[in-house]
Amino acid sequence: MWWPRYRRYPICARTVPEASITIADLGEFGLIAAIRSLLPAASGQVIGIGDDAAVVRAPDRRVVATTDLLVEGRHFRREWSGPSDIGGKAAAQNLADVAAMGASPTALLVGLAAPGDLAVVWAEDLVRGLAGECARAGAAVVGGDVSSADSIVLAITALGDLSGRDPVTRGGAHPGDLLAIAGQPGRSAAGLALLQAGLAGPREAPDLAGLIASHQRPQPPYDAGPEAATLGATSMIDISDGLIADLGHLAEASGAAINVETAGLTGDRALRSAAAALDADWLTWVLTGGEDHALAATFPAGTSLPGRWSVIGMVTTGHGVTIDGRPAKGPGGWSHFS
Amino acid sequence: MWWPRYRRYPICARTVPEASITIADLGEFGLIAAIRSLLPAASGQVIGIGDDAAVVRAPDRRVVATTDLLVEGRHFRREWSGPSDIGGKAAAQNLADVAAMGASPTALLVGLAAPGDLAVVWAEDLVRGLAGECARAGAAVVGGDVSSADSIVLAITALGDLSGRDPVTRGGAHPGDLLAIAGQPGRSAAGLALLQAGLAGPREAPDLAGLIASHQRPQPPYDAGPEAATLGATSMIDISDGLIADLGHLAEASGAAINVETAGLTGDRALRSAAAALDADWLTWVLTGGEDHALAATFPAGTSLPGRWSVIGMVTTGHGVTIDGRPAKGPGGWSHFS
Repeated sequence: MWWPRYRRYPICARTVPEASITIADLGEFGLIAAIRSLLPAASGQVIGIGDDAAVVRAPDRRVVATTDLLVEGRHFRREWSGPSDIGGKAAAQNLADVAAMGASPTALLVGLAAPGDLAVVWAEDLVRGLAGECARAGAAVVGGDVSSADSIVLAITALGDLSGRDPVTRGGAHPGDLLAIAGQPGRSAAGLALLQAGLAGPREAPDLAGLIASHQRPQPPYDAGPEAATLGATSMIDISDGLIADLGHLAEASGAAINVETAGLTGDRALRSAAAALDADWLTWVLTGGEDHALAATFPAGTSLPGRWSVIGMVTTGHGVTIDGRPAKGPGGWSHFS
Repeated sequence: MWWPRYRRYPICARTVPEASITIADLGEFGLIAAIRSLLPAASGQVIGIGDDAAVVRAPDRRVVATTDLLVEGRHFRREWSGPSDIGGKAAAQNLADVAAMGASPTALLVGLAAPGDLAVVWAEDLVRGLAGECARAGAAVVGGDVSSADSIVLAITALGDLSGRDPVTRGGAHPGDLLAIAGQPGRSAAGLALLQAGLAGPREAPDLAGLIASHQRPQPPYDAGPEAATLGATSMIDISDGLIADLGHLAEASGAAINVETAGLTGDRALRSAAAALDADWLTWVLTGGEDHALAATFPAGTSLPGRWSVIGMVTTGHGVTIDGRPAKGPGGWSHFS
């Protein structure tokens, strides 16, 4: 169903520039119809947008479910990121939480609260970003809600399927287990630092532009989650608050200690270039930067891991996180309200 | 896990009144721990709060999922409703959407964005309201997220199970079908009108107080949803925007017309009392009031319906909604952004 874009401008339709149409012009049902027209139906979807609720396949007889709020000014800034990147990042952080349980993402529900003067094209690009990241993860946007509000709030819920695997929690790490990561922590923090410093035009420094892209549009290794579960991972977590902080959550939930060996964290060329340009320490970005949505998992000693998993430490007895045997210190991550 | 309430006041713990503790005092993780301590684990829950995602049973191999945003000042006012009622109502409107598909609610995920100066006791009572309404529906709060924001935004996602039944959509009504409702539309609108008029102290007029309670804390007939599916309902919708408006959605999705016979809408004593007190028309409340979350469903002619289902009309050929054969007019419901 397509709601005519110029519904309230039947006479002057050809003279109103598309970019000036606001979501208030379209109205609630018009906006929903416009969003719906951008979204393909997916194979896992039994009933999608347009009814009281969606119906999604859950072949495993269990469904993995997670929700996150993204508040303008706290989680994103319209002046720093375009709507497609904001949508992609919002989807990524929820889909990564599903993957971190060892599940394959299946569906996304999207709540969008926004001021009435928001341009429809902005909302449409947001939805394109959400849908694009869903497609990368094998999922689809199946439903949502829109509301007016003074500033933009996104509420994303992601669902996933375990395909018969046991869910991998934060609480199963045992002393002696290997600690490994898939993905590249630190790149998002480096990209943010470059943005804050006003550095790195894409043409002059493609490496640095890649870091900025990693900040604006992280690309979590979704299929590494189910892969880890199949490989027998004893615990797993999505790195969203920073490596040390999230390993701290994992250690606490498991009643064990974790030691990170920095020799396992090599830092790619771009990270080292950015650190040199900013006179910063790339290892700090790797250890404390959030939002990359890399996955950290523990595996029984001797597990043979595919190439994308880098062993970076071990689980030991005790509690807390150590770096090369010394207690981790410094900023451990991000906390709201404080 | 319980996070000490006075964590940041170790010295003056006994002198700080509990009501003055804010969520900023507790911090993000403290608030999550406080919320978690209020929530019982439910039988349908495999993994609940505290991991990257929840895992919920979905025995049907399909999961029903719906999400709603509630924005302070748009959907609720703290000066008109207490936190427990706001939570109860937020849960009810999502759980009712699950029931309207013919499913039994199983789980709720809750996003709470709020200013840091919000009292912890307010957030706790909100969660008690959410949990209480979940218990009434047979569901449980299994996860969520908290964030800071300038005003309160609630993002609720409800999940449900079809137990082998086909989902009942808005699109299956056929000419000749009976139209029936379960629940009591109009009561919430009457209660709102009483509140706006400053009428109805509970002691003097218990009937009217009941209407105000219906506005503050609607109690949808959740099990009527699966019941309707079992009885062979051809279409169903949750009445949230108003009876005429929502029947309009159902008629449009079904490609049919619906005629409501007002003789079937008797109006209870309280509605008639309130209408007399306010010099208002109780039937207008019934036809256009939203937020009661009664269920409207269509059934093949001749279906024998249990007592709680009142036949109020018929599906016919054509399109749109008529009242006693005349086109419905007047306010059809609520729309955002317009």
